Amino acid sequence: MRRPSSHVRAARWTAIVAAGWLASVASAQAPLASWNEGPAKAAIVEFVKAVTDEKSKDFVATADRIAVFDNDGTLWAEQPLYFQALFMLDQVKAAAPKHPEWKNNPAFQALVAQDKAALEKLGMKPVLELLVTANSGMTVADYDKTIRDWLATSKHPKFKRPYTDLTYKPMQELLSFLRANGFRTFIVSGGSVEFMRPWAEKAYGIPPEQVVGSQQEVKFDMKDGKPVLTREPKIAFVDDGPGKPVGIYRHIGKRPIAAFGNSDGDLQMLQVTAAGEGRRLALIVHHDDPVREYAYDRTSHIGKLDKAWDEAVAKHWIVVSMKSDWNRVFGFEK
Amino acid sequence: MRRPSSHVRAARWTAIVAAGWLASVASAQAPLASWNEGPAKAAIVEFVKAVTDEKSKDFVATADRIAVFDNDGTLWAEQPLYFQALFMLDQVKAAAPKHPEWKNNPAFQALVAQDKAALEKLGMKPVLELLVTANSGMTVADYDKTIRDWLATSKHPKFKRPYTDLTYKPMQELLSFLRANGFRTFIVSGGSVEFMRPWAEKAYGIPPEQVVGSQQEVKFDMKDGKPVLTREPKIAFVDDGPGKPVGIYRHIGKRPIAAFGNSDGDLQMLQVTAAGEGRRLALIVHHDDPVREYAYDRTSHIGKLDKAWDEAVAKHWIVVSMKSDWNRVFGFEK
Repeated sequence: MRRPSSHVRAARWTAIVAAGWLASVASAQAPLASWNEGPAKAAIVEFVKAVTDEKSKDFVATADRIAVFDNDGTLWAEQPLYFQALFMLDQVKAAAPKHPEWKNNPAFQALVAQDKAALEKLGMKPVLELLVTANSGMTVADYDKTIRDWLATSKHPKFKRPYTDLTYKPMQELLSFLRANGFRTFIVSGGSVEFMRPWAEKAYGIPPEQVVGSQQEVKFDMKDGKPVLTREPKIAFVDDGPGKPVGIYRHIGKRPIAAFGNSDGDLQMLQVTAAGEGRRLALIVHHDDPVREYAYDRTSHIGKLDKAWDEAVAKHWIVVSMKSDWNRVFGFEK
Repeated sequence: MRRPSSHVRAARWTAIVAAGWLASVASAQAPLASWNEGPAKAAIVEFVKAVTDEKSKDFVATADRIAVFDNDGTLWAEQPLYFQALFMLDQVKAAAPKHPEWKNNPAFQALVAQDKAALEKLGMKPVLELLVTANSGMTVADYDKTIRDWLATSKHPKFKRPYTDLTYKPMQELLSFLRANGFRTFIVSGGSVEFMRPWAEKAYGIPPEQVVGSQQEVKFDMKDGKPVLTREPKIAFVDDGPGKPVGIYRHIGKRPIAAFGNSDGDLQMLQVTAAGEGRRLALIVHHDDPVREYAYDRTSHIGKLDKAWDEAVAKHWIVVSMKSDWNRVFGFEK
């Protein structure tokens, strides 16, 4: 498999210099312990060193140290199907008897058949529409409980573990490392905010207000003297592809200086980040480890990495090999 | 003028106990120096003490210490007209020659005439629509510059000072006091996020991502190889009245434990905050100081305080008298 030249170029930052500085800022535990020494780790460390060193020409004030992370495929796994899609599948199946009109709906057919090619072709919107219909009229509190219950009881088909175990240890370390260096870390995901918020704080140290994602319409009412928010059968915002820079603008209001993704859906977020003035970090996680996780890229129906990979090569963004850059993928590994 | 009974009730927290604790947490400078000793200050201090004391039955973990603040009339002045409306007036006037169709538009007529009664009747939406039309096609960077230029050069008609001087000193102290006690502080305003973000960090210590407000549609494009966000002639979200709990849910994702407002547009935000389980603080700033600022409430066209006042009385929320509870209103006062 072709490896982009950014790896080679990144090697100009010598690992020795970077490692020395890393040791100087490290607490008792090494901050990026699950990362192998190599050009990807060195590039991350050197970037953080440059933007946090007041004497550096690349210094960035704390107020502007914004880092954005895609979720599916970047912070946790996304195969064999986005985990939210698996949740949605259960929700939609449960609601199907009440919606005979779905029988002829292509998104419904693709979802039930887990037809990834069809789902990829359709895009997120018609699939999300099924879910918003399935759960409309629910209060946001009840919907939150549905998600928590599903996450507590469902297991991943390959790993036989709760989905929340499938977060990447090296990325958790990276989030902590950035925050320890004055960054604010945000998720910017095509998934819905409701699905991520219940567990993102524990898994990533990212509080609900730093989770940017797709949004459903909700409506305020007073019922029996109590304020209630109810889900409406309408999507308010799709935070994917060109939606990601829009979500960043609307929610964060500042251009990030570092962005982390893994697929073509992250391309525009990476472009906006990289196009800012001054030092920038754009990084792509490449799924090339079929043993510990999965191997997929240009032709995958889920998490397709094609255009963004070409651009990473052309613009010397960092491409992380899960296989060779990470000495462990999941926290549960021995 | 009738003073609500919440003041009287709040007096049960003796000022002596509260002041003693306040002194113990204060740094060199007293944290709420612009607040007179009295039931309103005592209630704030006692609330913060209760939710931050691990031994208290009302203790709230840091992760859940969310406080939300209305902006216009709560953190800065809003008379003779919302400052953003004055900005919009200039923008709309400048764009009017290109829009002959506006001549018969009631919102345009009301805005140019500064007809507050008509503006109140129309609500924010048609007025915002004029602005989004006036500025559509602008990049978000150009729009940001327009706002910064206007704020740098415009002066308030009564105080003859830049609008950003008209932030309330006691509220700035309150924001700092809450943050010093582990709170995250958010603006939740009917105004647009773009108009507040350029100065909110300096004025209030609130970074852009903690500013929730009305939103215009923006569109992502690549132009000459550069990513650009352009304003579209459509409102995406109106963060006022029943929109405020929706904005809080979508942006913050947790129910606040403290809410601060001044008008009926804040009622639903206060209701949602007060309806949560455990100890809550709901506070209304009452404009009753015609000398240092303005005096208005039940019949005002801007910042009308009528229903929310009744509810404050009925539910024993705190009502702050600007006249008697604040020993200074603005930072520029001697």
